[in-house]
Amino acid sequence: MTHYLDPFFNPQSIALVGASNNISSWGFIVAHNIIQNNYTGSFYPINPKSDKILGHVAYATILDIPQEIKIDLVIIIIPAVKVLSILKQMTIRNIHHVVIISGGFKESGKEGELLEQEVSTYAMKNGIRIIGPNGMGIVSTRVNLTAVMWPVKELKQGGLAFISQSGNIGTIGISVASRRGIGLNTYVSAGNMADLTIADYLEYFGKHDKETQVIGLYVEGIQDARRFVSLVKEISKIKPVIILKAGGTKAGRRAAHSHTGAITGDDTVFKDILQNAGSIIVNSLEEMFDLFLAFSNWIDWSFPRGKVVILTLGGGWGVMAADECSRHGITLETLSEKAYERINALLPPYWSKGNPIDTVASLNLDSLRQIMLIVFEEMPQVEAILLLGIGGFSFLANLAKSSPLIPEEDKSSLDFIIQAEVELFKEILALSDRFRKPILITTLLVPADSPGVKYLQSQNFPLFSSPANMVQVFRYMVNHYRWKNRI
Amino acid sequence: MTHYLDPFFNPQSIALVGASNNISSWGFIVAHNIIQNNYTGSFYPINPKSDKILGHVAYATILDIPQEIKIDLVIIIIPAVKVLSILKQMTIRNIHHVVIISGGFKESGKEGELLEQEVSTYAMKNGIRIIGPNGMGIVSTRVNLTAVMWPVKELKQGGLAFISQSGNIGTIGISVASRRGIGLNTYVSAGNMADLTIADYLEYFGKHDKETQVIGLYVEGIQDARRFVSLVKEISKIKPVIILKAGGTKAGRRAAHSHTGAITGDDTVFKDILQNAGSIIVNSLEEMFDLFLAFSNWIDWSFPRGKVVILTLGGGWGVMAADECSRHGITLETLSEKAYERINALLPPYWSKGNPIDTVASLNLDSLRQIMLIVFEEMPQVEAILLLGIGGFSFLANLAKSSPLIPEEDKSSLDFIIQAEVELFKEILALSDRFRKPILITTLLVPADSPGVKYLQSQNFPLFSSPANMVQVFRYMVNHYRWKNRI
Repeated sequence: MTHYLDPFFNPQSIALVGASNNISSWGFIVAHNIIQNNYTGSFYPINPKSDKILGHVAYATILDIPQEIKIDLVIIIIPAVKVLSILKQMTIRNIHHVVIISGGFKESGKEGELLEQEVSTYAMKNGIRIIGPNGMGIVSTRVNLTAVMWPVKELKQGGLAFISQSGNIGTIGISVASRRGIGLNTYVSAGNMADLTIADYLEYFGKHDKETQVIGLYVEGIQDARRFVSLVKEISKIKPVIILKAGGTKAGRRAAHSHTGAITGDDTVFKDILQNAGSIIVNSLEEMFDLFLAFSNWIDWSFPRGKVVILTLGGGWGVMAADECSRHGITLETLSEKAYERINALLPPYWSKGNPIDTVASLNLDSLRQIMLIVFEEMPQVEAILLLGIGGFSFLANLAKSSPLIPEEDKSSLDFIIQAEVELFKEILALSDRFRKPILITTLLVPADSPGVKYLQSQNFPLFSSPANMVQVFRYMVNHYRWKNRI
Repeated sequence: MTHYLDPFFNPQSIALVGASNNISSWGFIVAHNIIQNNYTGSFYPINPKSDKILGHVAYATILDIPQEIKIDLVIIIIPAVKVLSILKQMTIRNIHHVVIISGGFKESGKEGELLEQEVSTYAMKNGIRIIGPNGMGIVSTRVNLTAVMWPVKELKQGGLAFISQSGNIGTIGISVASRRGIGLNTYVSAGNMADLTIADYLEYFGKHDKETQVIGLYVEGIQDARRFVSLVKEISKIKPVIILKAGGTKAGRRAAHSHTGAITGDDTVFKDILQNAGSIIVNSLEEMFDLFLAFSNWIDWSFPRGKVVILTLGGGWGVMAADECSRHGITLETLSEKAYERINALLPPYWSKGNPIDTVASLNLDSLRQIMLIVFEEMPQVEAILLLGIGGFSFLANLAKSSPLIPEEDKSSLDFIIQAEVELFKEILALSDRFRKPILITTLLVPADSPGVKYLQSQNFPLFSSPANMVQVFRYMVNHYRWKNRI
């Protein structure tokens, strides 16, 4: 059964009105993005002045595309005043889906507001559905479509649908997603929402799109608040809905209005309502992406009571993580006698002898895996392990490889160290899967510098940048679990 | 006049006891670090089994170093039980400064505690000053000394002294400093503080070391709290003292005790006292480094009232920044009539028409500089500009350079775009200097991908990773200014 929104996210052919060869134009950037990321369908650039755009045959208007070719989706990136005429051409060609990137509508004042009304009224009468206007485009990894005003490369396909009411936040967001190796299936820059609203997208990705596991929303203001809250409540029972809500303070409200013309409400009230409806309200883009990753890895696992063990290669990290747990009501379980004894036999005599388990910079790599196994075996009440400070061995070895001070014949052992760390991480992830208990990892190492960390990232694994982020995300997960299971 | 701590930070010659050729040992890592970073003094590795360590002549003991050679500083990285014997050799060779990296002392239980007492009593009797034990070493960029258990490369010399009670937090911290291009003069991993305490370091860097402009401390527990608070109060009047305090919750206190044997107090009380004494209490390592950069750029500038203008290339960022300002009591100044008119003449008709100034993705690069000039000229009460979303032009151009879709002959214009953005940033920094008003910048772009952002980083300029960080740091600066000037 096809859904009325499917052609946006599974188009077999698209036309880009405003495609350009001029490197400093948005029309160029969008076209370049689409071609370079190997859109799987047919691409028809529209430009009255060029025969070819980036090597693709261009047409003066949509009407000039040969009749036998069916166009699923039109993307418009020309000035607002010309948009209506394109919609009229779409009607002639029997096209019913359009992404309007062009700005200059409601967000720009009275004149633009009238223009937007005209466009949306025409669209409604003629059965055209609109994403935008004044958005930054869409991404759908199902068909390698990256029709956005920002270069995106190497996006990974995955279970996340991300809808943003701000184009800038959204597109920077997917840059971060790409850098962090996050698996995305869709990004929609909702723009002014002249037709389709965030509630429509939420419904589609929550109830119809089977690939979507987690939904992330950046929201400034909601027009159809009652419907939106009902949907949040319904969908949160099936998949996590993560919301970054901005524009809730007085200064923020003013800014939001001039931005997408949104009327935003008082945040404390609205956030309470949304939280009660089961969504997870985060405070930053970083938290949203951390949670994205966490939920897509541990989506059906259970953590009703928030009991953890901290395992750290450095004492300071353990102290900071313990502090954060206290602040967030996450319990550090006392080590059971058996767990204590088995761990004590593994570590140097000056280990921390408690939770946090501090391995005091021990260079015995495998002890990490063994300690986790002991914790999972001996302390079934523990719901997660918080792991800090790893990735350093392969970091060191990787760095040493480029050192002129180390004889070449010694360098083969460096590859061995790197490989050993990657193997260890594989085993740790397998352990986590086997016991169905998350292992949350904080590392400040950059994947590019640490093959071990790079491996974890390649597995779509959440890597936190501070103990505070890590514990906060676990708290969100515990809360969500409790909400969902009415605990 | 030399200070009793000078030999730690300006040693002309050092001996490393425990230097090793074994790639997987800490003794190797420290030696390699020292040599690879071109320590300017003489380096004497000590190892009873090797004649040469990494190409340097090695000696079996300190006593085997030729008599005529004067050693300023000894660094020890061998097991705890052997440390006392090294101190005895130091006495014979008339050496009075030692960094003990070795663990296995107070942090490891009763036995280690006795060992530590023995070592520190001997040191006191023989006039030896100790950094550590159980630390991760020291860095002094004055002499390119990087005697730490973690590879550090390309550390920039600068005005920051960073003292950490946790080796792991500290060394990861300097990795971050190196990655972010932060100019450091000293890092000390204070360890168990068997002799020298954080108060001693604070006094030295606050009152004696002229190169130090800002002091950053990671603290778990303070032994000599009264002296420490007095020093904070005295030094905060001269240079900012930034403190990351951990181990304040019950769980954190337990963790801290097993970590460095520190007895930590109740945080809310202690933090209040420290804040009243003029120090800036931050919540994370990231905040500490952001503030480091902010203060070293704008150290004598004034911001008593927290009035700002937000300038953004994307609306969403403006909304989030405005929200954060509201939350932190930072005032968004209404644009004056003259400022409004002049800006209105510059931007497309659909700009935000207020503060935040949203340039709505205008591709006219120079308008940014002009808007800032207008704000500074027409609104003297504004104390800072918060700038969001920049660096994208050179990011785009940089990416396009590697695209096979763009003809080679068009690529020269890409270099022009990159150069234009870098030039613009130069002018913006000059503008900020001229008016002595900070420009705080948030960008999620990675310097490696954006030549513009890379330029800003190369200038030791603070680059924030979120509006929340940016506004929080400005709030810290306003508070500190008010404390210092009794406002």
